[in-house]
This record gives sequence, structure tokens and C-alpha cells, in this order.
Amino acid sequence: MSKDLISQLIDTLRCLPGVGPKSAQRMAYHLLERNREGGNKLAHALVEAMEHVGHCRICNTLTEHDECEICSNQGRDGSLLCIVETPADVLAIEATGYRGRYYVLMGHLSPLDGIGPEELGLQKLADHLDRGGIDELILATNSTVEGEATAHYVGEMAHKREIRASRIAHGVPIGGELEYIDGGTLAHALAGRQSV
Amino acid sequence: MSKDLISQLIDTLRCLPGVGPKSAQRMAYHLLERNREGGNKLAHALVEAMEHVGHCRICNTLTEHDECEICSNQGRDGSLLCIVETPADVLAIEATGYRGRYYVLMGHLSPLDGIGPEELGLQKLADHLDRGGIDELILATNSTVEGEATAHYVGEMAHKREIRASRIAHGVPIGGELEYIDGGTLAHALAGRQSV
Repeated sequence: MSKDLISQLIDTLRCLPGVGPKSAQRMAYHLLERNREGGNKLAHALVEAMEHVGHCRICNTLTEHDECEICSNQGRDGSLLCIVETPADVLAIEATGYRGRYYVLMGHLSPLDGIGPEELGLQKLADHLDRGGIDELILATNSTVEGEATAHYVGEMAHKREIRASRIAHGVPIGGELEYIDGGTLAHALAGRQSV
Repeated sequence: MSKDLISQLIDTLRCLPGVGPKSAQRMAYHLLERNREGGNKLAHALVEAMEHVGHCRICNTLTEHDECEICSNQGRDGSLLCIVETPADVLAIEATGYRGRYYVLMGHLSPLDGIGPEELGLQKLADHLDRGGIDELILATNSTVEGEATAHYVGEMAHKREIRASRIAHGVPIGGELEYIDGGTLAHALAGRQSV
């Protein structure tokens, strides 16, 4: 063994996003000094999740089951399909009370990084659309260049199959003050104005 | 199993200091989507550290060995003993190039929380001092009420044994501008002025 266990723990904690050397050190000492039980529980949860969590057969999100909870819920509206980039986006949209179904891309198109439709696995989405029963695709990818490109591409896939596609609205956030909103967002908000 | 593995992972990640629900979620998805190997390594490092890390027989710091690296290093100056609150403080002082030895209290006196000299295990420090060979005790506890009280108490222990005791200097940090230093620190800096 080349390094001692405490240094190893500090090093491996740095694989967590947003954790630098100082936070990793603080975390390691906190667990060792005050919460060994928590540390053991965390180790167990990590092993279990890394081992057993895979992708939902239908919507592609992360789940330990063959079908995720949402896909296996018969009460959800199967005619609405919301396209998102990540499982975290599903949680965010779930919090709004949306009752349709999802498809999780697990990324976005990014030709510069060599991620085209094939690498992103859009064939699985195409098969999903071909099975029918979907009236509307809600394109809820991020409002980044890659997210917009992905939304455009998936929108085209829907049009080819004569499925309606819509893009979530972009504009001034609720509670936001115009003074502090960036120009791009404000331009979007003006272009997307709706009659009242 | 009541909760799914992903939720369990998110919950257990929150035992890390400074990790709230959003960061925990981000960490869990990051590991699952992009770094399963890192997750497994982290689990392994956690198990090993929680299982095997104990206290140094001599200086009380956290280590997986019977004696820590510093205590078993014969090149260190055994006549200087630096008293600190936590193992992280040892790392901070090591970075200054200090070549003496340490004693780690693993906390501070805090009568309000029921932590007196006995609970803090100061008998082990007393035995250490009684073994002799120590010329000076450097009191490097934190500059908090509890840290000051602990420094005072340990200082008295040293005086009883006719060992010199010193407190690290408190004052204006290097590179600090007087304008932005709080009054308490500035008062300390004035009271602790040294002739040049």
C-alpha cells in the first residue's frame, strides 16, 4: 500500500463533483471523527447503487428496475412525452405536477465532442415513437446551444412521424426583475410574447 | 426495501458536511452517469478507512497504524510539543515547516456541552507530559472561547510540571489590510505588539 488510508479517502472523495482538496479533507475528517456509521452507510449505498442501477427499458432514465417507477405507473398520461437530457431534469419537472411520461436522452447532441444521433442512442427514442400512442412531444432539453440543437433534431423526428412537438417556453423567470435579466433571455421573452 | 437505491444514495451522501439535498442529488447522478468506477473506489476507501483508522498511541491523532507517521519519525524534535484540536490542524501546521511533535486533543473543553477535562481525555496528555523530555508546549488551539479555555487549562497543566508553555500569536493576517480587520483581532494585534 503506497498511501495511507486517510489520504486515499481524501483523494477518492475528490471524484465527487464540486469537491476540492479542502472540502475532501473536511469530509474525511468529519466522517472519521464524528460519523463512522454514516461513512459505512454511504459506502454500502454506493456499492449497491453502482452495482444495481441501470437504465429503464422504456424511458432510458436511471433505475434499479427493468422499468422505472414512472413508466410502470399506469395512471400517467401516455399521450404526452417529455424529452429531457438527464434524470435530474425528470425530478425537476416532476416537481411541477406534470402527469405525462418522459424520455431521458442521457446527454445531448454535441458534434464537436463526437456525439451524434447514433452515439446518443436516438434509435431507441425512434423505436419508442414508432410504437405509437404519443400525441405530443414536449422538448425540455436545456437552453444551451447543444440543448437547442438536440431539441431541433428530436422535433424533426416527431414531424416525420406526424407527432406534434412543442418547446418549453423561455423568458423572464417568475419573480425575476427585468432590470437584472440578461439581454438574450429578454429578447426571447419579447419574441415569445403571448396575447392576453 | 422501502426506498429505491438512488434515493438511498442521495440520502446517505447528505451525511457529508456541507452537502445539501441539491448537491447530494448532483453527486449521485454524476457518479451513476459518468464515474461508476470512482464511486466504487470511494466506497472501498470509505470501508477501509472507517474500519482501520484509529488513534495514534502517542499523539492521539487519527492513523491506521499504532503510531502515526510523525510520532514514529525519529528526526522530529521531541522537546517541542504543539497542542492542536484536530488532525486537520496538524496538516495546517505541518505546511509551515514546523519540525516538533504534536498532541491532538480531538476537540476542546466545552463545559456547556458536558465536555470537561475527563471527557476530553486530558489524562492521556498528562501521562505524555509526565514521561518527560518536553521543553516547551505550543498551544495552537483555535482562537474561539472554547479554544482559549482549553489553551488556558493545558497551559496550567504545563506550569504545574514546570514546562514552558506558549500561545501562538493572534493578530493581523499576512497580506491583510487594517481597514478590513475586525476590532477584536486589531485589539489583539495592538496588545501583542513586539519591539522592532
